[in-house]
Amino acid sequence: MKVHIIGIGLIGGSFAAGIRKAFQWVEITASDANSENLANAKRLGLIDSAETQKSISKADVVIIAVPVDVAPKILVEVLDQVSENTLVFDTGSTKAGICKAVATHPNRRNYLAAHPIAGTEFSGPEAAVSDLFSNKTNILCEVEKTAFRLQERALEIFQKLAMRIRYMDPAAHDRHIAYVSHLSHISSFMLGKTVLEKEKDERDIFDLAGSGFASTVRLAKSSPHMWTPIFRQNKENVLEILNGYIENLLNFRDLLQNDDFDAVFKEMERINYIKTILNGIR
Amino acid sequence: MKVHIIGIGLIGGSFAAGIRKAFQWVEITASDANSENLANAKRLGLIDSAETQKSISKADVVIIAVPVDVAPKILVEVLDQVSENTLVFDTGSTKAGICKAVATHPNRRNYLAAHPIAGTEFSGPEAAVSDLFSNKTNILCEVEKTAFRLQERALEIFQKLAMRIRYMDPAAHDRHIAYVSHLSHISSFMLGKTVLEKEKDERDIFDLAGSGFASTVRLAKSSPHMWTPIFRQNKENVLEILNGYIENLLNFRDLLQNDDFDAVFKEMERINYIKTILNGIR
Repeated sequence: MKVHIIGIGLIGGSFAAGIRKAFQWVEITASDANSENLANAKRLGLIDSAETQKSISKADVVIIAVPVDVAPKILVEVLDQVSENTLVFDTGSTKAGICKAVATHPNRRNYLAAHPIAGTEFSGPEAAVSDLFSNKTNILCEVEKTAFRLQERALEIFQKLAMRIRYMDPAAHDRHIAYVSHLSHISSFMLGKTVLEKEKDERDIFDLAGSGFASTVRLAKSSPHMWTPIFRQNKENVLEILNGYIENLLNFRDLLQNDDFDAVFKEMERINYIKTILNGIR
Repeated sequence: MKVHIIGIGLIGGSFAAGIRKAFQWVEITASDANSENLANAKRLGLIDSAETQKSISKADVVIIAVPVDVAPKILVEVLDQVSENTLVFDTGSTKAGICKAVATHPNRRNYLAAHPIAGTEFSGPEAAVSDLFSNKTNILCEVEKTAFRLQERALEIFQKLAMRIRYMDPAAHDRHIAYVSHLSHISSFMLGKTVLEKEKDERDIFDLAGSGFASTVRLAKSSPHMWTPIFRQNKENVLEILNGYIENLLNFRDLLQNDDFDAVFKEMERINYIKTILNGIR
C-alpha cells in the first residue's frame, strides 16, 4: 500500500507510525511546508522518503493532516490529481467548511471527511506515536458521498489503528466539537494567562503543582498555528458555547459575592454528575 | 509514635497510610464525624482503632484533616486538651482564618499550620494512598510560632513522606492558592456545567473523549463538602482572580467576535510560555 501524507506533524506522523506497524507492505511518502518536519520524519523512520505532491497520483491513500485553514485548498488540489482508486482523507478539527469546499468537485467520491479525536499538547513529528489513535473516536462526515470501495479501505485502516468510528453530519460535528474540545482549549489558555499575569514569581507556580492547575492548564501548551484557524472556522459555534461558559462563571461569581453558599454547594453537587458520564473516559 | 487523625478521608487516610509505611513503631487512631469513614479506614488497615477524641491527650501527633469550615473550631478544642509534647497540624487549603483563630491560644506553640498541596478528585479513605504526598509541596505558615522540637518532629514526618517544604505567611498562601488551585476548580466546574447543559445526549460527551475535555473537567468531580467552605473562607482572593479570569475570557471573546485572529494567535503564543514553567510539573 502506497501512502502519501501531507503535513507530517503530530497527527500525520502518528498515522505514519501506526500504519507502518499495522500493515506489512507499506511505502510512506510525505510532503510538508516545513522542510525540518520532513527531515525529522525521515530521520525518525516515520516515512520512507520526502517527495513532492507528484506521489499523489500513484498513492493508494492520501492523508491530509494540515491546519484547517489550508486543508480545503490542499484537498481541492489533491482531488484534481488523484486516480480513480485513491482514497483521500483529512484529519481536521472542523468539517463543515472542508465538506462545502469540495461538494461539487468531480472527484468528491475519492474523499472521506474524518476527524480522529486524538492528540496531545505537543506538536511535530517528534511527538508522533503509533498508538495515538488507539481506542479514540474517529468521526466520519458525509460518508455516503465517498465511493464504497474507498470507504472500505479507510475503515480497514481505522480498524487496524483500533479507532472507534462514529458518523455525524458536518454541522453537528462542528457544534459538538466546539462544546467538548474547542471550549476546553479556550478555558485552559485563559486560565494560563490569568495565572501568569498574577504570579510574577514563577517559582510559586512551580511549587504549587499538585494543585489541579497542571491538568486544567495543560491544553494552554497547544500550538497557535493549529488553533487560530480552528477558532476562525468554527467561530459561530465557539462563540455560542463560550458565551454560555462566561454566563455560568458570572453567575457563580455572583453567588460567591452574595454569600449564597447553599447555592454554591448545590451547583457543584449537580455538576458532580459529570463523574458518571466520564467514568468510561480516561 | 502515637498518631491521632481527625477526619479520615482522602488526606487523613493518606497520612495514615504514609506514616504507617515510613515509621516502624506507630499506633494510629482516628475520629471522624462520619462513622462509615471510620469503619472503612479500620477495614482497610489505615488505622488501628477508631477512638474518641480522648486519644488526643496521649498522642504524639494529632493531624486535623477536616473541611476548612470546621477545622478552626476543632483545632481550638484539640489545643485545649493537648499535653506539652503533642504536635498538632492541620492540612487545610486556607490558612489565614485558622491561624487567626488560635493566635492567642495558650497552646499555640503546639500547632503547625500546614497545607500539603496534594489530592485527587476522589474522596474518602478508600481513595487514600501512601505516596499521595511524595514530591508534593507542603506549605507551612507562621512556623516561628511552633515550638522548635515540635517543628522538628513535623519535619521528620514530612521528610519521610518525601514532601518538599515551603514557608509562606498565611495571607500570601491564601492568595497564591486561590490563583493556582481554587480558580482551576471553578473553571473546571463551570466547564462541566456548560457542556452538560448543551450535551443532552451524554454519549456525545463520552465519545468525544481524547478531546482535552476529560483533563480540563477532571476537577469538577471534586467534593462540594470540601470546596464550599474553601470558597467561603477564601472568598476575597477567589473573587479577585475569578474576575481577572472572566475579564480575560471576555477579551478573548471580543477578539473572536471582531475577527481579530492575529491577536488571537499572538495571545496563544504568549501563553504558550507556560510550557517552560510547567516543565517540572507532572
